[in-house]
Formats: sequence, C-alpha cells, structure tokens
Amino acid sequence: MSLDLDRIRAAHQRIRPYIHRTPILTSSRLDDATQTKLFFKCENLQKIGAFKARGATNAVFSLDDETAKPGVATHSSGNHGTALARAAKLRGIPAHIVMPRNSAKVKVRAVESFGADIVFCEPNDAAREAACAGVIARTKATLIHSFENEDVMAGQGTAALEFVEDAELDVIMCPVGGGGLLSGAAVAAKSIRPKINVIAAEPANADDTAQSFRAGKRIVTEKKFTIADGLRTNVGEQTFPIVQRYVDDVVTVTEDAIISAMRTIWETMKIIVEPSAAVPFAAIADRPSSLGFGSAGMAGKRVGIILTGGNVDLDALPWVSNRQD
Amino acid sequence: MSLDLDRIRAAHQRIRPYIHRTPILTSSRLDDATQTKLFFKCENLQKIGAFKARGATNAVFSLDDETAKPGVATHSSGNHGTALARAAKLRGIPAHIVMPRNSAKVKVRAVESFGADIVFCEPNDAAREAACAGVIARTKATLIHSFENEDVMAGQGTAALEFVEDAELDVIMCPVGGGGLLSGAAVAAKSIRPKINVIAAEPANADDTAQSFRAGKRIVTEKKFTIADGLRTNVGEQTFPIVQRYVDDVVTVTEDAIISAMRTIWETMKIIVEPSAAVPFAAIADRPSSLGFGSAGMAGKRVGIILTGGNVDLDALPWVSNRQD
Repeated sequence: MSLDLDRIRAAHQRIRPYIHRTPILTSSRLDDATQTKLFFKCENLQKIGAFKARGATNAVFSLDDETAKPGVATHSSGNHGTALARAAKLRGIPAHIVMPRNSAKVKVRAVESFGADIVFCEPNDAAREAACAGVIARTKATLIHSFENEDVMAGQGTAALEFVEDAELDVIMCPVGGGGLLSGAAVAAKSIRPKINVIAAEPANADDTAQSFRAGKRIVTEKKFTIADGLRTNVGEQTFPIVQRYVDDVVTVTEDAIISAMRTIWETMKIIVEPSAAVPFAAIADRPSSLGFGSAGMAGKRVGIILTGGNVDLDALPWVSNRQD
Repeated sequence: MSLDLDRIRAAHQRIRPYIHRTPILTSSRLDDATQTKLFFKCENLQKIGAFKARGATNAVFSLDDETAKPGVATHSSGNHGTALARAAKLRGIPAHIVMPRNSAKVKVRAVESFGADIVFCEPNDAAREAACAGVIARTKATLIHSFENEDVMAGQGTAALEFVEDAELDVIMCPVGGGGLLSGAAVAAKSIRPKINVIAAEPANADDTAQSFRAGKRIVTEKKFTIADGLRTNVGEQTFPIVQRYVDDVVTVTEDAIISAMRTIWETMKIIVEPSAAVPFAAIADRPSSLGFGSAGMAGKRVGIILTGGNVDLDALPWVSNRQD
C-alpha cells in the first residue's frame, strides 16, 4: 500500500472521533500587508497543540489488536511524543517515549500527563535510536516513527484534506522537518486540486530539504541551531521521494524572519504558534518575491498556511530573551 | 425603543458583513480540570481583537446619513476606541478618539491604523469627558459611548446570540466593566434560553458591580489597580438596571487568579487573551464552589465563557514582569 488520497481519506475517517476539525482563520490586516488572501489552518488549536495528533492517532488505531497490545514506542523531543502518548492512552495500550534529557519541560509534562513511560537519553541521534531499540527489545512495543511511517504521513495529510475541502486555495504552504506533514499534505492537496501549488518552507539553518530538492537527491546536512526546533530533523528517506514528486518548491527563511513572523501572528491573529509554525508565513512576510511559483508571483493568490503547532514555553519567548541581551 | 432580542437580532443583521462569526473552542484538558464542559466564544479572534467591534459597528451603521456625516467621537483607553475608528472607516466618516496620554502603545497604533483623529488627554475621567465634549462641540460628531448606548449594548449582545445559537449552554459567563457586553449578552441569552444562568465576573479590585448587585442599587467605587484594565470602569447608569433584571450572579476574583487563568488559557488553548478576558475562567478555575447558582453548583454544567479580547502588549506579560521582580 502506498500513500494516496484513499489512504488519507481512510485515515480521516479513523481519527475523526479523536481530533478537532480545526478552524481556518483569516486576517484582513495580514492580507493587506502581504497583498495576498491568506487562510490559516489552525493546527495549533489541535489536540495536544499540534497536527502531530493526527498522524500518531492514525498509526495507533491502524494496528491490529495483537500488534497493539504490547504498546507503541518512539523517540521524540517534541510534539510527536505527546501525540503518541495520547493516542496510546485513547486506545488503552502502553506508550514508551524516548526523550533527550534536555527536552523542554513543558513537553515532558505533556507526555507524562497521558501516562506514558518516559525513557530519557543523551541528546543525540545515536543515543535516541539506541534507547528506543532497547525499549522495543524489552517490551515488544511497535515503533511509530514520527515521519518514516506511511500511516503517520497519511494522518498528517488529513490536515490538508480538511483545508482544501473548507477553503479554495491556489497555494498551500507548510513547514518541512522530517517531511511527514509535507508528504501527506502534498498528496492530499494535489490529488484533490491538481493545479494547487504546494510550497514547503524551512529555516535557512536547517535547509537540507531545499538543498535536496535542488540537487534532486536526498542530502543530509550538518545541524545548525534554529529556533524552529521542530524542523531540525533531516527530511526522511521515505518522505523525500514524495516531496520530489508532489512539491512545487522549497523556500528558506532566516532566524530573524521566523521570530518576527511568530510575533506578527501572535499580535495580529491572537493565537499562539511555535517558531516552527511561523516559518511559512515568514517566507511570505519577509521576501514574497522569492516565492517564484508561476509568473505572477504571490500577489492576489489565495494562500493556505498550515499553522503546525502552538507549544511554546511562555517563560522563554524569543523577543523577551532578545530584550535581555 | 429598549434593549430586547429583536433589537439584538437587527444589530446582528446590520453588522454581519463587517465582523467574524467567531469560533467556539473546547478543551478536554480544562473540562477535566474543572469538572465542567466549557465552551469558549473567541471574541479575541474578532476583528480588532475584541468583541467591541460588534457594538461600535452597530452604533455607527445605525446612524442616519445626515447624523453620520460629521463623524463619531468617543473617549476610550482601550478596544472601543479601535472598534469605533474601524467602524467609522468602514462607513467612510471621521472618527475622533480621545485617549489618555498613558494608553498602551499597541492600542494607540491600532486606532491610528484606521486613520482616526486621536486627541490625547490627561488620564482621568474629568479630562477625558472634557476633551470629548470639546471635540464634539468643534466637529458636531456624534458621541458613541462605549457602553451607555443601547445600539452599542445591542451590538455586543450579538456575541451571546451567536453563542447560544451555536452551543447548548446551561450557563453563560462574561466579564463586567461598564456592562455593555453583559447587558446585551444577558438579554440575548435569557430571551432565547430563559433557563440559562447568566454569571458576570469581575476583579475583586474593581468590584463595583458585585457591590451594586448585592445592594440593589448602583454603587460607584473608588478605583484600585487591576491588571484587567478593561474592567476598571464602573457599571453604567443605563446598563445596571438591565444587569439587575437579567443577571443571576456577579462573582469576583483576585489579581493572582486572573494572571493564572490568563496563562492557563494561553498554554492550554493556544490563544492569546488579555487579562480582562481571563476573569470568568479565573472564577471557575480558582474557586468553583463560590459559583452558587442552583444547588448542584458548577459540576457537570455546560458553561459558555465569552473570551472578550486578545490585545496584549507582548513586551509586558504579567508572568515575565513577575519574574523580573
């Protein structure tokens, strides 16, 4: 079975009782400022505060009873861990979440609140994978990877399914980290509206997908710091071919543009988005001319942006730390 | 003409092209924490970031052409000024907004952005009223008071009209300052659902409505500081009789409870609310037993809360200043 519209529709049927159909917000102020018509799909208002609830729930409820029984496991410093913990609790099975010791406290508390077993590890990929393999060997839990898993991709794609059903869009944008959301969203959007432009946005400091997209092959880059912590991951081996096939462009933005976009969304839209979620809007707000799909550029286009999450440490806001420098 | 359901319905028809029908959000986490079923009517996501867009728009579009031509005027340190500036711009007439010199910069910028004429005055009631009277004498503009105006009350009441149409509620709660929203909301809610409980919430530091409600007559209190700056006003002479007739109870909350409720809403709901908007939830979160409507108290009730606004200075968040103390 491969990732296609039927699979995403099936995922939507499966997870519907457990997720919000999130609202789509608009802002005439931001439309005026950007000379576009913007639609914001508010996955920050999703269960657990992020679209990740969709993919994890679909993956957990796609398991047959026997496979599900020993539980599920993953390594995640972020929203996928919380999402998997919640999905497992809903299904009544154990969840084992491997988290780096330096994870944000708010994310540790969120995973704990769903009763999951947390295994702390050193904050590097090798330690995460080793700890996760150890947990799986011990418990027989099923690994639910945060993006290298077609059920997860299909689940994430339901955000775009709802989006193109509820709004008429010329363009759909989302951030890209591992590519789970992007691949699912691209398949859903292009299958329903073949003429839609799918644009991914990425921090310049974690631009492996943009590099890979230009090179025509997956390039793994060294990690630089980005405030968009959800997007530090390299694009996946399973997701990249889907990105290559369905995505029209991958654009990059600076750290300053991300912080500025995040603050603009907070101030104008009155909603809380995490830095990763602000990345696509940063691309529009900061340098619309770089968005070169079609000859007419972005002006006048109906642009849908998936706001991916809203889990932020309110004691460590980027503009507050900046002021204290 | 007095304030009744027909008038609120007419207001809704009149303002509908100019306002958002705001979403109603729910949170299973907050339901669990409060042992209620909560519904949040998100007027923080309304145009200009506050329900005040409703009343001002209704008042401006209720004027006949001749009266409207010289424009409208008001004194306001807050969202009503922005709302009136916007409504006047929509109608193509001048707006004169008297603001105290110490108004939040974000609110001054908002009024300016709609092209209104701003008249600064000293930050006291006498100076505000004198400045406003001066502007009106000079310009022949019509005074649109922020709550002592039935068209304003009717407009604010449309928030409750939508709320009871879209959600089945046992209780509806909103904050009370001057009482414009409370009076309109109470009339709308009680007229449509006579058995609904209407509960107002107020900072203990600005508890004139609670005192007046208990005393059975309007009491004007001395102003103490409250972080809920939208609620420092005393309840109005025109609004209080409506409050007396339609409201079931007025409860008060501490400053700490307001800040804590505000932060909980930000963290859990991922939306930005200003301190005033957090006051009803503060009453539920802080001491539910004080909410003594009916013998069963709040447990299990379907409680609707109007989140009144989201205009906050992101450089001056209460928990950040607390940390710097």
